[in-house]
Amino acid sequence: MINFPKPQVEQFFRTYVITGFSVSEDERKLVFSANLNGKMNLWAMDMPDVYPYLFAHHDESCADVRFDPKNRYVLANYDKDGDENYQIYAVPADGGMPQPLITGELSEKYFISHISEDGERVYYMTSEDNPSFLNTRVRYLQDGRDELVHTGEMAPTELAAVSSDETSFVYTMSFANTYVTGTVINGEKEYQLVPDASKVHVVFDPVFTNDHTIYFITDYEKDYQYVAKFDLKTESFSEVVTIEKEGVTALKWDKNREVFYVLTEKGVTDRLYRFDMAGETLTEIQAPVDMLDQIQIAKSGAVYVLGRSATIPHNIYQSQDGGKWRQLTNNRVLGLKSTDMVEPDIVSYPSFDGMEMEALLFRAKPENDNGYTIFWPHGGPQAAERKMFRSMFQSFLNRGYTIFAPNFRGSTGYGSEFVKLVEQDWGEGPRLDCVAGIEWLFENGITDSNKLFLVGGSYGGYMSLLLHGRHSEYFKAVVDIFGPSDLFTFVNSVPPHWKPIMERWLGDPQRDRERFIKDSPVTYLDGMVKPMLVIQGAKDPRVVKEESDQIVAKLKEKGRDVTYFVMEDEGHGFSKKENEIKVYTLMLDFLEKHQ
Amino acid sequence: MINFPKPQVEQFFRTYVITGFSVSEDERKLVFSANLNGKMNLWAMDMPDVYPYLFAHHDESCADVRFDPKNRYVLANYDKDGDENYQIYAVPADGGMPQPLITGELSEKYFISHISEDGERVYYMTSEDNPSFLNTRVRYLQDGRDELVHTGEMAPTELAAVSSDETSFVYTMSFANTYVTGTVINGEKEYQLVPDASKVHVVFDPVFTNDHTIYFITDYEKDYQYVAKFDLKTESFSEVVTIEKEGVTALKWDKNREVFYVLTEKGVTDRLYRFDMAGETLTEIQAPVDMLDQIQIAKSGAVYVLGRSATIPHNIYQSQDGGKWRQLTNNRVLGLKSTDMVEPDIVSYPSFDGMEMEALLFRAKPENDNGYTIFWPHGGPQAAERKMFRSMFQSFLNRGYTIFAPNFRGSTGYGSEFVKLVEQDWGEGPRLDCVAGIEWLFENGITDSNKLFLVGGSYGGYMSLLLHGRHSEYFKAVVDIFGPSDLFTFVNSVPPHWKPIMERWLGDPQRDRERFIKDSPVTYLDGMVKPMLVIQGAKDPRVVKEESDQIVAKLKEKGRDVTYFVMEDEGHGFSKKENEIKVYTLMLDFLEKHQ
Repeated sequence: MINFPKPQVEQFFRTYVITGFSVSEDERKLVFSANLNGKMNLWAMDMPDVYPYLFAHHDESCADVRFDPKNRYVLANYDKDGDENYQIYAVPADGGMPQPLITGELSEKYFISHISEDGERVYYMTSEDNPSFLNTRVRYLQDGRDELVHTGEMAPTELAAVSSDETSFVYTMSFANTYVTGTVINGEKEYQLVPDASKVHVVFDPVFTNDHTIYFITDYEKDYQYVAKFDLKTESFSEVVTIEKEGVTALKWDKNREVFYVLTEKGVTDRLYRFDMAGETLTEIQAPVDMLDQIQIAKSGAVYVLGRSATIPHNIYQSQDGGKWRQLTNNRVLGLKSTDMVEPDIVSYPSFDGMEMEALLFRAKPENDNGYTIFWPHGGPQAAERKMFRSMFQSFLNRGYTIFAPNFRGSTGYGSEFVKLVEQDWGEGPRLDCVAGIEWLFENGITDSNKLFLVGGSYGGYMSLLLHGRHSEYFKAVVDIFGPSDLFTFVNSVPPHWKPIMERWLGDPQRDRERFIKDSPVTYLDGMVKPMLVIQGAKDPRVVKEESDQIVAKLKEKGRDVTYFVMEDEGHGFSKKENEIKVYTLMLDFLEKHQ
Repeated sequence: MINFPKPQVEQFFRTYVITGFSVSEDERKLVFSANLNGKMNLWAMDMPDVYPYLFAHHDESCADVRFDPKNRYVLANYDKDGDENYQIYAVPADGGMPQPLITGELSEKYFISHISEDGERVYYMTSEDNPSFLNTRVRYLQDGRDELVHTGEMAPTELAAVSSDETSFVYTMSFANTYVTGTVINGEKEYQLVPDASKVHVVFDPVFTNDHTIYFITDYEKDYQYVAKFDLKTESFSEVVTIEKEGVTALKWDKNREVFYVLTEKGVTDRLYRFDMAGETLTEIQAPVDMLDQIQIAKSGAVYVLGRSATIPHNIYQSQDGGKWRQLTNNRVLGLKSTDMVEPDIVSYPSFDGMEMEALLFRAKPENDNGYTIFWPHGGPQAAERKMFRSMFQSFLNRGYTIFAPNFRGSTGYGSEFVKLVEQDWGEGPRLDCVAGIEWLFENGITDSNKLFLVGGSYGGYMSLLLHGRHSEYFKAVVDIFGPSDLFTFVNSVPPHWKPIMERWLGDPQRDRERFIKDSPVTYLDGMVKPMLVIQGAKDPRVVKEESDQIVAKLKEKGRDVTYFVMEDEGHGFSKKENEIKVYTLMLDFLEKHQ
């Protein structure tokens, strides 16, 4: 009959991202943020119907969307062209054009924290007057009054929970990704959620189960995050749910059933549990996908999750009791089934010091295999490459590239101690873990230095630059996507509210001068002799354009083969479908040229 | 609480069009053509789920989409940038990138006519070798053979039905919109579907109910279209279903139940009936909307319709038995309910010769009313302004404009005789009907000449130019959207397969020279003294760009206030959402400026 050719690269990008959702209290409306019409916008479905309709047109990313508990409005946190200066807009309950509600200068940030139970007060954090540590304020919607609630000090401070009577407030202060304290403030009184807050630990997702009991996630005195509670009356801390070798990453409270939903990460996949307060029983729930990005529990007890797997893009699922899942959205890769794509193998290899590293190995299917492999150091660095759909991975696999993505030291999913190993050591341990991964690929005959490309973004871009500078003999060519090139300039260019965490995370440019030099890619310009493609978003607030500008300029001065591509209307990522397709097509062309 | 402003103009355009659909035989997949992601593409839903996913990415309009009866492929008829040179592409059954199947030079046309019951032969019409009358060919999908089936002669010829055994073929030949004959060819034998084909009549939607019986729609010897049948064995013609003052516009056959679905038009609305062959009973079915654009009957007997109403944009509905409708899509106007929009009044007024004209009067809601009225002569002219959602109308109404749209002589919905009244009289009768409508508006205090704008597209653009040239005293300002300005040049610039119908429709430029001069807007340049906005698609194949170019040039020469806006990537309409918004925003600004 009709012969159809193999899937084209573009098909893998004709997939939509869903970055978040919110379900109204009566569960009659589900609003989600997706690039269905080519740019990020809010869409809604009137459940049980699932046909989506445009709910708010703004053509910008929305980091957070929340329903008024009384269904009179929806709040949305939008930035502009990826600049991450989120501001708060209101959308009519039936949808429409978002109206500025809590906004200011383009350079200021306003994050939604909490909507009061009657929907009349909005608590929010803002960079206004306090760019490094953030202030917490409350807006009274009835009369427009706006009051200061709390002034952030010492570290970026976030209002993480409010008691039902709005007298107790839990603030988290981030000294680093791995050091976040939780403080309860009730009038004049202040409590630390853990016995000794000076010990390095994290606290997040606090939940008031009543006006004096707070459940939260912490790794206090343990390697893996667990659920703990703090009682304001007795001022006592206790461990509640600990799961061996799994770190708790989210905690959701079903008030009516007195049940907690507990999400954990175990290496490259997530697991979901239901914890019954009364019986203190923990039951695993089979999740519909390998990674859950968001969970919401409705008043009825229904569970809504947004998630994905290596071969399944973002979708939203619903379950009445955590049992059988109904897939509400049907986001898929144009013309492909999951089985047409590649599910990764989970492999592990010993690093230079004997420490075991886990990695994802996506093997190109034999009928596609072009003999080349891409080494992909992930971003973060305190994040991980996990079983999540990436258009880039699956399209590159389809073109025949095998992809190897190691979770080097510093990655999440393997306990807090492992995560901390990258702190103040960006360029040594993790780099040697990458080198060991490359050697492992060679030893196992998966690839060799004539067949290996290096591609990474953000911290992964930094690592690509560094590996290129110090180990160019391993690679045919290198792609850097918004990677920091000079730690001295990078440490000073991050957003103000990131600065307080830089010391623990990266170090101090004066004190650690020697290390900064050693770990900065620009130190190794001479070694960067392979063809390179550098991609940068002009509005990137995390890794500013100068980081790419400077290394490109210096390499060009030396006559190196560097292609530089700047996207004028993007930040630290791709919010626009056509930009995304353009960049990855460019990357594929670059790799093909250098085979 | 939060005060939200009135709906903005843009919201009315943040609505999607659905131009057609097709349901697979097993009813597990519904594919539809819509601009959901900003451009026209094919989307699918896996029923009973209705969440749509991208089925084929091509970013072009698709005039026709059909399933292989065996579910191995889908055929799609795409043009390019609105040029209406449709060519035939195939899409894999699970979706993907459309592949050229039956295509040729960009200037050629290939229309899908019929897919054989085994899905292995595709009958199609093409302009190749026969640009004016079209040839019918068949493509054998198994071996790629392609054979000539029929050579069009005398008039554009379309293969309109094929018998199940593929031995009998019904061809329609279009001598005019109001004169279309139907011929059956079986080997050497030829039959006319009506007793005397030389009488002016139409034949369309023929259906073989068995290999020798053909049902079809005709107006043979009647004013309103009805259902007739022709028996090949007895060579007898008979009338089957006639409905008083309603013209039949579509006929769908449910083979398994031996039932016809009969769609009629009664003025500005449609009506749907079920005709039971056995009992010869006709039952009206309550349609879910006022206008039905497409109907498909599934093997199961389920009825699928695509339709709209004045305040409801295109949606697809399903009914098991023509009773209760399930709305499959949820296409709506961003942030608005139907009740936020305007349902038109149906009014009528006597014209210059006493003939009664029906018109739609959309009255701006009192809270929006700006005191101005827009006079809208519809396109066609052998079409009608009916109860169908128009973003333009509803957004202009929301800005406060009242809109008056008369169905002047030549409009459909009022019998064939009425339709024919515009033939060879484009500029006199219909124009005077418009003038009578304007006078009626004045007499009824709805507007006056200081408060009236004139806006029209296509034939409506022509009428706007003509009314402007001959009656500028009625209007404040005029908008012409791709309207012919000179009948002499227009008659020569239409697509080749339109040419045969031009004589009856418009006339002969030599024979009717005097009338062509009288009815050409360019004749009245001196009268065109009001500010004018002219909009044109550069690729318009029906009213070519020169029609607008020449009048704009001539008016500018005379120093008139003319704004000219050409859309480079559009044809006779707007296929791209952003173009549409740009044009209507421009129009609103123009009207506002000239209030």
